[in-house]
Amino acid sequence: MAIITPVRDPGDPRIDDYRDLTNADRRPDRPGGRGLVIAEGVVVVRRLIDSPYPVRSLLGVPRRLAELADDLAGLDVPAYEVDADTMATAVGFHLNRGVLAVADRAPVPEAAELARSAKVLAVLEGVNDHENLGSLFRNAAALGVDGVLLGPRCADPLYRRSVRVSMGHVLRVPFVPLPGGWPGSLDVLRAAGLQVAALTPAADAEPIAAAGLAGERVALLLGAEGPGLSPEALAAADRRVRIPMASGVDSLNVATAAAIAFHAVAAPVG
Amino acid sequence: MAIITPVRDPGDPRIDDYRDLTNADRRPDRPGGRGLVIAEGVVVVRRLIDSPYPVRSLLGVPRRLAELADDLAGLDVPAYEVDADTMATAVGFHLNRGVLAVADRAPVPEAAELARSAKVLAVLEGVNDHENLGSLFRNAAALGVDGVLLGPRCADPLYRRSVRVSMGHVLRVPFVPLPGGWPGSLDVLRAAGLQVAALTPAADAEPIAAAGLAGERVALLLGAEGPGLSPEALAAADRRVRIPMASGVDSLNVATAAAIAFHAVAAPVG
Repeated sequence: MAIITPVRDPGDPRIDDYRDLTNADRRPDRPGGRGLVIAEGVVVVRRLIDSPYPVRSLLGVPRRLAELADDLAGLDVPAYEVDADTMATAVGFHLNRGVLAVADRAPVPEAAELARSAKVLAVLEGVNDHENLGSLFRNAAALGVDGVLLGPRCADPLYRRSVRVSMGHVLRVPFVPLPGGWPGSLDVLRAAGLQVAALTPAADAEPIAAAGLAGERVALLLGAEGPGLSPEALAAADRRVRIPMASGVDSLNVATAAAIAFHAVAAPVG
Repeated sequence: MAIITPVRDPGDPRIDDYRDLTNADRRPDRPGGRGLVIAEGVVVVRRLIDSPYPVRSLLGVPRRLAELADDLAGLDVPAYEVDADTMATAVGFHLNRGVLAVADRAPVPEAAELARSAKVLAVLEGVNDHENLGSLFRNAAALGVDGVLLGPRCADPLYRRSVRVSMGHVLRVPFVPLPGGWPGSLDVLRAAGLQVAALTPAADAEPIAAAGLAGERVALLLGAEGPGLSPEALAAADRRVRIPMASGVDSLNVATAAAIAFHAVAAPVG
């Protein structure tokens, strides 16, 4: 049972995890970053509580903490109750959502183990925009993707903005940085019996809906919106698939293209 | 040939169309709104120039106007050249993209005429978020949708933010408010030989990939992300289709769900 603890001084050291979030968590995964996982809003805080990440505490206005009462019943951490002004001063901006929770990171699974148990995985190269990354995780969760492998030049899925845009689904879909050299590390997926299918706008790739991937064990290789996949990554794939596009349109957003591909390959039956 | 005209005074009345954009264009479609179409950035300005909307003028820093030199060659309107500070003062904020263009609205097509010539249309109910609406148009353009019909409670596709998020594709995909009562006005689509298929998360709807809609003449009925389609709209559809989703996930973003549906129904062949 979380203990509701009123805090009146925005400088109170018990709420240091939440201080000056805009600056403190610019790159939480880098040296100097605090490495904490921060959830904002009732829905995402609830997903954090249900996740493997060990929650350290909550900070919220009375109304939002009350909404979370059932979730807090099984949780043995402090819930700091503040008014909106105290919260804004500590956090550094006005937070509409009225509640935050903070957790430590958790160990990531082994790539080989995730690949063995997965039916469909997403493998990302150069997806370095936090919002696109968050949206991609939301789509992966909705469409039944079992995990995400991070190739080179990807953003941190646990960055605050990614967590928010994903609606907390980065806390739910397992992800792991692919170890070893790129794109040679894709071999770990093939060794686990997955086909590696690269999504590309190239005209000579197979239209994804006609590629016979539905129901197969597939690792979908996805690149960033502008540059797309590197030639090395494309060459390392077993096959290349595309989303047919109208002429004169540059591209889809990477999370949107991923959603179409996830649906074509992975959408849960039923 | 557009005439490049230097402007040094941010108060110059020749650039009044661009003044205080954050406030002036909060609801450009409403009484009191100025009703202008505003494009931001080289890519979107180029799409505005190529669109049916009559361009009134451009405003840009020298580097961006130079990038548009070829596009300006065939255009007989003033291009006001300013420095970044003059631009920021007139517009009311710092504009990274460095160039704007403004156009008048153009007459919309007749709904019945659009329906007769279209293979796939999107019909929206209550899509009132400007960013979602812009993303939806971008996806419609990319995936070969022939037009968008606006039912009740939709935002204005020509709002500045929608234009930007759509990457200018609202200027390219025809749209028209559906006339007459809702959802009775859907009859105009049936009269034109289109099936009306409503997208819904309801468990008893057909999975869209198995519904045999690919290549058919279809009007896809889409509702807002939270509430979805109204019971009246659902009841008025010829059939109901769904995107199979993992359990425990609320929903996809409406523009993302639309993209999956567009791909399933409309994606250009080849």
